[in-house]
Amino acid sequence: MGSSTIFYQMSESETSTYTYLLADSKTLEAVLIDPVVDTVERDLKLIQELGVKLKYTLETHIHADHITGASKIREATGARVCVSEAAQVENFDIKLRSGQVLKFGGHELKVIATPGHTDSCLSYYCEGRVFTGDALLIRGTGRTDFQQGSAAKLYRSLTQQLFTLPDETLVYPAHDYRGHTHSTIGMEKKFNPRVGGGKSESQFVAIMSNLHLDPPKKLAESVAANQFCGEQSSGRSDRVAKPA
Amino acid sequence: MGSSTIFYQMSESETSTYTYLLADSKTLEAVLIDPVVDTVERDLKLIQELGVKLKYTLETHIHADHITGASKIREATGARVCVSEAAQVENFDIKLRSGQVLKFGGHELKVIATPGHTDSCLSYYCEGRVFTGDALLIRGTGRTDFQQGSAAKLYRSLTQQLFTLPDETLVYPAHDYRGHTHSTIGMEKKFNPRVGGGKSESQFVAIMSNLHLDPPKKLAESVAANQFCGEQSSGRSDRVAKPA
Repeated sequence: MGSSTIFYQMSESETSTYTYLLADSKTLEAVLIDPVVDTVERDLKLIQELGVKLKYTLETHIHADHITGASKIREATGARVCVSEAAQVENFDIKLRSGQVLKFGGHELKVIATPGHTDSCLSYYCEGRVFTGDALLIRGTGRTDFQQGSAAKLYRSLTQQLFTLPDETLVYPAHDYRGHTHSTIGMEKKFNPRVGGGKSESQFVAIMSNLHLDPPKKLAESVAANQFCGEQSSGRSDRVAKPA
Repeated sequence: MGSSTIFYQMSESETSTYTYLLADSKTLEAVLIDPVVDTVERDLKLIQELGVKLKYTLETHIHADHITGASKIREATGARVCVSEAAQVENFDIKLRSGQVLKFGGHELKVIATPGHTDSCLSYYCEGRVFTGDALLIRGTGRTDFQQGSAAKLYRSLTQQLFTLPDETLVYPAHDYRGHTHSTIGMEKKFNPRVGGGKSESQFVAIMSNLHLDPPKKLAESVAANQFCGEQSSGRSDRVAKPA
């Protein structure tokens, strides 16, 4: 008999960030998407209780609002830390390119480059679910006004990559601020106020340039730490992120 | 071809309360479990966007920490408000008894009395998912020190009702305070620190009587309003909940 996918969604309340665990029910190989440093102990406890063997941690992007738990998770489990090949990051194990397929047990997870919120945003597709990071949010999108953001690029990622998935695909974003836990591609194509209902690229770009948002509170420290995959010693003066 | 179940989980951040929407993908008949008055607008918007026809709102119990959105949802949708036959409530439409089956489209939802947190707690089982209210939480349980709570009754609800469901049954509680969104019966049987690992009734009762928790902040006003299914005018002096 084939294996099924064990799936858990967890949230971190301060920054409304979602972390996702997927595992093969037979081999118990697992992947963890977007762990948060503040909730690493909770996630490690679940990993231990489920008895799963964590193979990879996957970042959807270099987060600007919180510090990734990837390094701590690696220390505890030996999981390999995966980031986009386009990301300016040190201290990672594997760089991912668009189209690449990662395996855990009998399951496959496909990497899809969805730049625009940042220039190195990735989404991950696995068996009817897509993990969209800050590219596609529920009735929203990530902002495009820092970290090499580009509304035009994001529009193309949304319409030419994510919106070409089947309508029934379940959308699991990196955040939600209204208490939604998932959406579908079909619902976002219809109802997303920024890109849904067939909005044009110029309409989308106009919406994005009129948001006038305050920067995230912990922007500088989050990005600096995440450029070392959240390693605790990343504040040391001899560890400065290099330009690409 | 048969219909599938449309399923949405939503959270209310102030009281960490979960609301659940289930709908038949073909007939679009739907039920809503534990709506919260503060997030009614969000839930109505989702109902409208999905195009579902809400047939019932279902309360798992008379909540002590927040006010139900049932009356507001009924006003907007015509859904019928369902409560336990054991609950001292006015302004409801249907009283539910244990074992009763509610239908929405081609799907069935079974009522299971799980008293102990309060004397009128209900759980709802539907196709591999059980909505446990405050009876069974993720690695926890509801408290049993007010609202006719009884640790002995709760132990029996947990071990003789919920833990007799298949291990792979997905557990969706009314709350989670650590950011978990679901568990399984098998995981709670193993790892629930209050009732898991084969704990005896006397062990459970001892744990529950040693919790010494502060009462919920909005206990009096929440219970009073919920005894009228959250009707906005429930504070009127001529509307006082009658004893059973």
